[in-house]
This record gives sequence, structure tokens and C-alpha cells, in this order.
Amino acid sequence: MDHDILRAAVVGAGYWGPNLARNFAASDRWELAAVCDLDADRAARVAAANGGADVETSLAALLERDDIDAVAVATPAGTHHAIALAALRAGKHVVVEKPIADRAGSAAEMVAEADARGLVLMTDHTYCYTPAARKIRQLVADGELGDILYIDSVRINLGLVQPDVDVFWDLAPHDLSIIDFVLPGGLRPRSVAAHGADPIGAGRSCVGYLVLPLDGGAVASVHVNWLSPTKIRRMTIGGSRRTLVWDDLNPQQRISVYDRGVDLETQALDSLERRAATISYRLGDTWSPALEEREALGTMVAELADAIQEGRPALTDGAAGLRVLDVLEAADRSLAAGGGVSPLGSEALELAGGAA
Amino acid sequence: MDHDILRAAVVGAGYWGPNLARNFAASDRWELAAVCDLDADRAARVAAANGGADVETSLAALLERDDIDAVAVATPAGTHHAIALAALRAGKHVVVEKPIADRAGSAAEMVAEADARGLVLMTDHTYCYTPAARKIRQLVADGELGDILYIDSVRINLGLVQPDVDVFWDLAPHDLSIIDFVLPGGLRPRSVAAHGADPIGAGRSCVGYLVLPLDGGAVASVHVNWLSPTKIRRMTIGGSRRTLVWDDLNPQQRISVYDRGVDLETQALDSLERRAATISYRLGDTWSPALEEREALGTMVAELADAIQEGRPALTDGAAGLRVLDVLEAADRSLAAGGGVSPLGSEALELAGGAA
Amino acid sequence: MDHDILRAAVVGAGYWGPNLARNFAASDRWELAAVCDLDADRAARVAAANGGADVETSLAALLERDDIDAVAVATPAGTHHAIALAALRAGKHVVVEKPIADRAGSAAEMVAEADARGLVLMTDHTYCYTPAARKIRQLVADGELGDILYIDSVRINLGLVQPDVDVFWDLAPHDLSIIDFVLPGGLRPRSVAAHGADPIGAGRSCVGYLVLPLDGGAVASVHVNWLSPTKIRRMTIGGSRRTLVWDDLNPQQRISVYDRGVDLETQALDSLERRAATISYRLGDTWSPALEEREALGTMVAELADAIQEGRPALTDGAAGLRVLDVLEAADRSLAAGGGVSPLGSEALELAGGAA
Amino acid sequence: MDHDILRAAVVGAGYWGPNLARNFAASDRWELAAVCDLDADRAARVAAANGGADVETSLAALLERDDIDAVAVATPAGTHHAIALAALRAGKHVVVEKPIADRAGSAAEMVAEADARGLVLMTDHTYCYTPAARKIRQLVADGELGDILYIDSVRINLGLVQPDVDVFWDLAPHDLSIIDFVLPGGLRPRSVAAHGADPIGAGRSCVGYLVLPLDGGAVASVHVNWLSPTKIRRMTIGGSRRTLVWDDLNPQQRISVYDRGVDLETQALDSLERRAATISYRLGDTWSPALEEREALGTMVAELADAIQEGRPALTDGAAGLRVLDVLEAADRSLAAGGGVSPLGSEALELAGGAA
Repeated sequence: MDHDILRAAVVGAGYWGPNLARNFAASDRWELAAVCDLDADRAARVAAANGGADVETSLAALLERDDIDAVAVATPAGTHHAIALAALRAGKHVVVEKPIADRAGSAAEMVAEADARGLVLMTDHTYCYTPAARKIRQLVADGELGDILYIDSVRINLGLVQPDVDVFWDLAPHDLSIIDFVLPGGLRPRSVAAHGADPIGAGRSCVGYLVLPLDGGAVASVHVNWLSPTKIRRMTIGGSRRTLVWDDLNPQQRISVYDRGVDLETQALDSLERRAATISYRLGDTWSPALEEREALGTMVAELADAIQEGRPALTDGAAGLRVLDVLEAADRSLAAGGGVSPLGSEALELAGGAA
Repeated sequence: MDHDILRAAVVGAGYWGPNLARNFAASDRWELAAVCDLDADRAARVAAANGGADVETSLAALLERDDIDAVAVATPAGTHHAIALAALRAGKHVVVEKPIADRAGSAAEMVAEADARGLVLMTDHTYCYTPAARKIRQLVADGELGDILYIDSVRINLGLVQPDVDVFWDLAPHDLSIIDFVLPGGLRPRSVAAHGADPIGAGRSCVGYLVLPLDGGAVASVHVNWLSPTKIRRMTIGGSRRTLVWDDLNPQQRISVYDRGVDLETQALDSLERRAATISYRLGDTWSPALEEREALGTMVAELADAIQEGRPALTDGAAGLRVLDVLEAADRSLAAGGGVSPLGSEALELAGGAA
Repeated sequence: MDHDILRAAVVGAGYWGPNLARNFAASDRWELAAVCDLDADRAARVAAANGGADVETSLAALLERDDIDAVAVATPAGTHHAIALAALRAGKHVVVEKPIADRAGSAAEMVAEADARGLVLMTDHTYCYTPAARKIRQLVADGELGDILYIDSVRINLGLVQPDVDVFWDLAPHDLSIIDFVLPGGLRPRSVAAHGADPIGAGRSCVGYLVLPLDGGAVASVHVNWLSPTKIRRMTIGGSRRTLVWDDLNPQQRISVYDRGVDLETQALDSLERRAATISYRLGDTWSPALEEREALGTMVAELADAIQEGRPALTDGAAGLRVLDVLEAADRSLAAGGGVSPLGSEALELAGGAA
Repeated sequence: MDHDILRAAVVGAGYWGPNLARNFAASDRWELAAVCDLDADRAARVAAANGGADVETSLAALLERDDIDAVAVATPAGTHHAIALAALRAGKHVVVEKPIADRAGSAAEMVAEADARGLVLMTDHTYCYTPAARKIRQLVADGELGDILYIDSVRINLGLVQPDVDVFWDLAPHDLSIIDFVLPGGLRPRSVAAHGADPIGAGRSCVGYLVLPLDGGAVASVHVNWLSPTKIRRMTIGGSRRTLVWDDLNPQQRISVYDRGVDLETQALDSLERRAATISYRLGDTWSPALEEREALGTMVAELADAIQEGRPALTDGAAGLRVLDVLEAADRSLAAGGGVSPLGSEALELAGGAA
């Protein structure tokens, strides 16, 4: 397919903006048209390092330009809402660094605005564009795993204790966005229970557990920990047909698909509906698919181009960003209630549900 | 030290009884005096295979004998209470296969009876007598890990779905008894939250998570799973000085002690008690102690002999068994309440606390 | 197929004999008819533990019995030749504990005698009957790996330094017998180079390397080491289509088959036969077959029954035992020559080649 | 210590030169004075990317400058000899990319020239400057391992089959230079046996084994392989006191030191010098030192500065490069002789021995 080249502007030239700029500049789908930052020097350095895009210091001026197709927002989370709304209202497609906003309510407004205008609003859930996550999504969609029974995600490391966010907000968005990406209908837990511990007195949770009951008796869980001396990044996805383990620290075998499991067959015994259950075990082969080597962010910007040109939502759209945010806010409520189960179903999520 | 040989009787010649009989017979501290089972043939086979102990089919007759120092109970959990009380009342020391009883209230009565009579009541928490668990207990007691910050235990496998108990009662007693064993004051969580899932419709939880807040902001957690195609048995014990990982499936390095961690120093800044926290990271060496090869059950029967002859509680005494049972019952209550946080502090535990 | 039950006698009730006796007794293909040892008590214990076979202390008397179909020889290697020849001459089928004899010349005589009489002579290369080795043999035979390019076998451990044999004779027979088993034509190297080291002054090689050039430019190598603090048992079999790795210490994934490799296509460029080679790389999936759980020795005795009743050589026949012995003797010659390359092709092997 | 800043010129702006230029420019010990390449554009790009050094296209002109302290040679191996000799004769210190030359004879001349002029001639054995290699060298020097008994190095991977060199010349220099670096007296094997295989018809060895007998009965071996689907980079260094394993693909535990081993005590029994040997086994702890994170090449340029300013040979001096080359040439001779044992002790090595 022959595509027109699209033109992107990156807003924010701090930590993540240069990565976005580099990938737009390197893509054959995009031209990096401008880099915008209040700090002109910083913007100029990023522009120069990526082939000489325009430098802008005024967001308003940037959005008035009619040669910009999409705006990539890489500013602090608290500013995402205002910048993205302004860009959408100026008719630009928008991709926002995660988290999509600092509150679910703000995210819901952004989703509604993009819907109303028929523009693409994408969340930069970068991990979803790794070859591993894309392969898993495909395997689940193809039914290779069967129905999803449980997802268990562990992301622990001796990590930098963050000054402003707890371990849930720092690490769990990765797990939640991936789970949202691979589940056919997205991550829609019935409730959230969050358990946090701050045994070093850091003032926020350093060790955390999330449990998310899913429909049909399934469950997702996330374990995050800043204090672990060993590093583990492993997600297990148990299915009725097969079970998949993603061990991201094993480059020689990141994904293993096990044709092993427990099968339960239930038979109606008689008209009284008494049932006999027979449990059997499958002990089949293990298979590890080869994965291409490709930078996730390059795939992300290509997906943004595809979504714009095909007039469809991005794979990780605004609603996906909102669903992740809604789980994190429910986790906050659970923590505040001492670990109690916190229902989802806020207005924000309803809106996102409608938007998806 | 020169010890008199003690004489043991094993009650119950089913699955576990033969293992107990074999270890009593092989010990230089014990003589296997009798095997008691309603099924005389079964008892006779176990007796014959272990050097020819007496065969008894009547518990009453067994307990009337005055040449028996201790009775090992390896019958179904529902019978532990009655048999152990009878044995204690006959003046015998008692060791009971785990769980110590089927209800915490029963266990509490057993503990009280033993206390009143000055007899040893031991719970056969076999895993606690592995070389690894003993080494960990020693390291914690010596302060090598500092204060315990968190314990995270994972025990997952493609396991036999049990017909009568859920995954918590099947697998978590191992984790809980080990945690109870290594924590200096035993396992005394402030509450229990249990989250279970039954995604295959087995009629009971097949995937489970326990979160147990401990004093001082610490937390213990247990993840058990019958449906995992991979087998993991790993316990991480994070301490303020060092962190230990027990990977029981790595025979070449079961225990690793990491001199790595996050340090937080809090300083009072001024008289208004504002504080500044400084976080630093230690990235020190890793150390893996050599472990002797020794059968856990052999160490267990030796400990029973020591406890009897030294007139002290066994390392895994009745109160330990009761603490584990109390957590499991609190987990049941949490599950019944849909994952809500369930406080401990039952009368049963109070009693055990007093007994410890 | 309905088989008559065969009757076996085990000669030698020391270390290995009881294992053989147990497996004959447990097999539905065999009856354990007798246990023979100069030490009548030892023979009686083995017989009693396996259902009460006859006890014999005279080999001559045993061989005169006409109710014995096969004799299993588990005596010191130096006695294999005499016992096996006597048994064959008495018309018995014979299985011999490895090594088949202490010298290749003796083994060749045994092979010739069995051939002349139309009897089965089997070498008990136990490792070949593990589920892993059988699966590998099948995969190679089915062409799943393509042509064999190289085999690299590592068997190192902190092992018992043997008083009478060096590390080659102690450990390499395992590797060599497995390589012989999986290669379609058996192990027939063109030469052997052996390099040994005795850095602790034990009086014999404690660290050893064998390199065995095979036909078609392929190579097999074996690294054995008694002094390694870590234990490795890994065999890599590189093929033109796929490469297989057997990691015997990874029970969760003993065999991995990699659809990865280097492909070289050679094209004739012109009439002068100049050639251009194009190298390409395959980076395909990895596959790990499920393996049944089954004791190797049980499979071995069943194979002996099959070979006898089908009138064919056993999978690990006398010639296989001879080929392994011939490599070990060539290794000895290489060592004696300071590591020089030692050709095979002794009369012994010629004989075995003819016999195979 | 306060050091004067030294001035370096990099000759060759192809693959490796930019890495050298970047590290000289980033070092507080060096100023990057010039980049020299026949291709002025290429030199200019490297100079610009590293703070704007001078561009030279004439080696003669470069060497005439008196503001250059040292020349780093990163040109094809065949040109190292001529360039290094010219630089030494111009009074410059020299560091040469490995291999130090394409023939041992050339390397010997370079070593002699540097010695005669009192200049530093360094070989850029980069791996020796990794934190792991430096730690190992220190542990060996401190006697932590005791006497070295064996070194076993495995470097296998699905690698790029090289058009001009075989797998020995491509991969083994890494292993050999590291072994040379950690052995107290450098790598001085008594002979070399090389076994290569070319099972894909590539025209050169793709699978290779080197065996290098060392003094005192010790042995070093190197296994290299371009055809392995799995990647292994592991060096085991067995010592009389402890054994060290360097697993370079395990970033969480690159180095493990095992206090395990076999001890042999030999006692004279009587005046006839009969001896009794007693073998015992140590089963002690394992220890894994923390390693700093530091780029090897940065450490290398600092060592060059230290060597120049302290007037001493560099840790990886010209003689080290020559020793590696001499082993490779002996390996070539062994291969040409069909795997025969090839003695070292060429004039080249004699010279290097004298120079060391």
C-alpha cells in the first residue's frame, strides 16, 4: 500500500520526547515536522539530532499550523488533558505518553472529544508494541490459548523509589496496559483489590499486589515491588487450551506456550441435574515462537499512521489508557479502604466502555 | 550428650504413617514400639518393613501401654483432635501430621491440654525441617537479614486438583508453616485477605492469593496455583539488611542472600519535626550457603526427642499448628466475604498466643 | 501382541544386580527365575526382595538349567567375557552391564559367539532407554534434524574420583553410548583425539576432552570433568535442518529443538567449477516435546524381551558395546601418545562392523 | 594523583575507531587530538561527533606532529605492523586493536621496537577491561582460587560465518586474551591441539576445540562454535582452593565463586617412597561478588594513560597480544597437521617471553 507521508509534532523535549522524535524521524510513514518546548534550546537540540525539524515554543502557534497531522504529547501527566484537548480541537490526531492523564475523569473527556471529532486519540503504551506482546495478542485472538483462565504478572526489581508516585502507579501501568492489550475485550475487571506495604517508611507503597476478578471466574493479578534484589518480569496467561509464559528477561526464550493443563469435564448425570466432574491433565509439548527484533516505539508510530489513514481507533486507543487509569484509581480507593475490594464501574469507565 | 532411647507408636498406617515409622525406626534416638491401625494387615506391613514393631488395632489398648513415650498421629485431619487428646490424657507426648486439626478451636483445646499436662505437642510441619528452612531460620535469628520487610512466597504447579480442599488448604500450609518457622515471633498477621479463583469450575479455588499484613508495615504474601504449567517454589524474604531468596527447585543454589537493597534514612530537619528522607541503594555481593543433605523427617523426629528430653516446646509446636490453622480459617472468612480483609484475633489465636 | 513370559537369571548381586532383578521382577514380560552370586546370603537377599526367585551359587549349575531364557551379567567388567561366553554356549541370551568387557578384543569374541549361535547379546547402556534418548533417536531417524553436523556432549560434576579408572572410562561411556544410539549408523568415528589432565596428582585424568571426527566433515566431542563445582549434563546435536539440546538437569524442558541454524547454498558459477556460496540464517521457533515418565531400566528389559521374541538384535547390542569400547581404547592410545590423533579401524572394530 | 592530560590520535575511522575516539574524548585523562583516515569525510564525521578533533588524512603528517602522545591503531590487521612501527619510530606510544598483527613475527618486531624505545605498546584486548575480567584477575592474583588447575571456556552462538577467518581466529582471541590476562604469568601453554570441523562446507572451521596443556598438569581449553542455536559464554576456572564460573549472559550473577572441590593429600608412606593418596571433598558456600557497571573501553584508555605516565607496560601489552597470536598460529599448524599436538616455543614467543 502506498501511503502519504504524515507530519508529526512532538510536544515536550524532556525525557520521552526525544525517543518519540527519533522514531517519527526514522519512520518511512512520518516526517518530523516540529519539536515544541517552552525551553527553546532543548527543543532545538532534539530537532537538530533528528534531521532539523522546526522549533516551536508556543503550543498555540504550533496548533495553528495546518501542516501538522498529529501531535505527540510527552509532557508531565498533569498537563496531558489540556494539551490533548487543545490539539484535538485544532483538528490534530493525538498520541499521549502514558498515563493518558492524571485522573480518569480527564481521560474520559479526552476520549469523548476525540470521538466527537472523529480523530485518533492514542495512548503510548509502548510495551504493547514489543514483538512479544504483539505475538501474545495474536495467539489469544486466534484462540490458541482458549478462554483466559488467569493472568499473573510479576514485575519486581531493585527499583528507584519514586518521589511522587507509589509502586502501583510506577510499575503496574505496564502490566495493566499489556493485559488490556491481549485480552480480547480489553481489561474490564469486576473489581479491584489492592494491597500495599511500605516497610521502609518511604511514605508510599513499595510492595504491591493487585487482584482483578474477571468475567467467567477468571482472575488477573499484578505483583510489583521496588525492594526486590532480583529482577523478575514474567507474565503467565493461563488458558483453557494452553498456557503462555512471557519471561522478558530470557532473550533466548521470551515466550513459552505450554500445551499442558487441567481439563474439567462436567456431565449432567440425571434429571435432577446432579453433575459429575472428571478432571484430566494434559502433558503436551512446549513451543516457543521466534520473535522478530524490532523497536517497540517504531511499531507504535507506524500503528498511529495506520489508524489515522484507515480511519480506525489505534490498538492502544484513548479508551485503553482510560481503562488502565480507572483500575489505578480503583486501586487507590482500595488502598485507602485498607485493602477492601473496590468496584469499578465509575462514570468514567462507562464512558470509555461506550467509546470502545 | 547421651540420651535414653525413646519409644514411639505410630497411629495410622496409610499414606504418611509409613514415612513416620521409617524415620522413627532409623533414628538413634527412637525405637519404633508399635504401629496402630484399624486395618491390622496394613499395620503389620508397616511394622514388618521397619524392623518388626508391635501391631495394635485398638487405640485404647495402645494408650494403656506404659512403654510408649510418644504417639505420632497420621490419621485423617478430622480425627486428630480426639486421638491427640486421648493420647495426652494418657500421658503421652504427641506429634500430629499437619494440619494439626480441622478447626482452630480443636487445635486450641489440644494446645491447652498439652500445656496443662506439661507434655510436648508437636505439629509435623515437615518443610520446616529441611536444611534450607533451618538455615533461613538461623540467618533471621542471627539478624543477618535485619528486620523483615516483606515475605513473598510462590508455590505453583500443575497440581492435582483435590476433591475435598481448595488450593489454599492444599498448598498454603507449607508456605504458612515455613513463614511461621522463620519469623522470630511466629506468624501473627494483623489480618488476612484471600482472593481465590475457580476458572475451570472445579467447585473450589484453584488459584489463590493471600496477603498478610505484619507488624511494622511489613507484609507476607502467598501465591498458590494448581493450574500453572510451570513449577515454581520460591520464597523471597526481604530484610532491612539483606534479602534472601529460597528457590527450592534449584538444587545447585537453593538459597541466595543478597546484600542489596534500598536504604532510607530519615532525619529530623528541625523542631517542627519536618523530616527529610534520603534513599540510597546497596549493591553488594551475593552469598549462597552450602546446605547439608539430610532428610527433613529424620530431623523432625530428632527434634521431638530433644523437646521431650529437654522439657521444652518443639520448634514446630502445637501453637505453630494453631497459628497456621487460624490464618487458613481467616482466609476462608475472607473468601466468603468476597475478598474482604479478615481480622485475626480469634479466641483460638489468643489462646495460642498465650501458650507460645 | 500376546507374549510368552520369559525367564531371567541375574548373575551378580552387588551394586547393579539388584536393579536388574527388580526390573525383571516388575516386568510383565519377565519372570525373575534365579539370582546367582558366590555369596549365597547376598543372592538370597536380592531374591527375597523381588518375590522369591531361586538362589544359585554356581554359574555352571545355573547354566545347566533349561528353564532360563536369558542371563543378565552384573559382575566386575573383567569377568564379563568368561561369563557371557559360557552363557551363550549354554544357549542363553545375554545382557551385560556396561562396559561390555574390559577389552575390545574380548567384546569382539562375545559378539562373534552370539552371532554364530543366533542369540541376543545386549549391552545394558541404560541411558539409551531414558525417554529423552529414545525421543532423540526417533527425531534423528525421522530426519527432523537433517544430517548431523556436530554433537557436543558435556558431563561435568564434582564427582567421585575413582580409584581404578580415569574420568574417560568413568563418565564418557554414557556420552559415547548415547551418541552411538542416536546416530543412524552408530558411532563410527574416523579417529579419536583424547586430551586429559590430572592437575591434582590423582594418578589419572580428572579432566578430559575427546574429539571424534565423523564422516562428511561432522564432529562429535565429549567433555568430562570430575573437578567441576557445578553440574552440567548437556548434549547438543546440530543438524542441517534443526538443532537439538538435551539438558538433562532441566526437568521442565529436557529437550529443546531449535529451528535455527546456518544454511549454506553452493552454486556452480561456471564451467571452471568456481563456486559461490551464499550463507543464510534461519531464526525459527523452538519446540520442546513432552516426555513420558518411565524408568529406563524397565524399558531396557522390555527391549531385551522384544529382541529375543522377534529374533533381532537389541537396540543396544553387543556391537554397540564394542564400538564404545573401541573408542575408549583409541582414547587410551591417544593419551599415551600425548594427545595425538588415534585412528580407529582395529581388528576388533572391523569384526564388530561386520557383525553389525 | 594529578595527571597531565594526554593527547591521542585515532588512526582508522571505520568500525572500531569511533569507539576508541568516543572513549578518548570522554576520558578525563585524554584529549582526542586527531582522527586520521584516508577517507577525509569519514574522519571528519568521527571528529565532529567527539568534540571536534583535527582531521588528518596522512599518517606521515600525523606522526610528524609533536603534540600527539599516543596513537590508537584501528585499521585492518594486515596494516598494524607498518603503522605501529612508524608511530613507535616517531616516538609515540601505541595501542593496537586486536589482533596486534596478522603474524606473530610481525608482532614480535613491534614488541622489540617498543622495548628498544621505552615506549608503551598496548593491545586493545577489550574484554580484559570488563569489570568481570578485572575482578577475576584480582581474585587469582590474591590467591583466592589457589593454584589454577583447569580453565574451560565456551563461546558458542549462532554467529556470522566470517568470509576471511575461521571460527578460531574470529572467536578464540577473546577467550585466549582473557586467559592470558587472568593467569599470573600469562598464557604460556606447552603445546596446542586444535580440532576444527566444517560440516556445512563453508571452507573453514565453523566448530572448534583448542586444548592447551599448562605447567603443573593444568590445562586450558576453548570451545568455539558458529553453528549453535543457543548462546553460551562461560568460563570456568578451577583452582586448588576454589573454582570460579563466569557466565557472561547472566547479568544478575556473572561471577560465582564456589568453595567446593576435590582435595588430594599425598603422604609418603615409607622410605621406598610409596605414597598413599587421600581424596576429600569440600562442599562450601558459593559467593558472587558485586561488579561495578563500567564500560570496558573507558577502563582501557585509562590504563593506557596510567601505563604511559607510570612508565610501565600496560596490563595487556604487546607481549600479551603476541602470546595470543602465537597460540593461534600454533592452532593453525595443528589444524594443518590434522589435529596433531603443536608445540609452542617459536622464536616469536621466545622473543615475547624475553620481552615480558
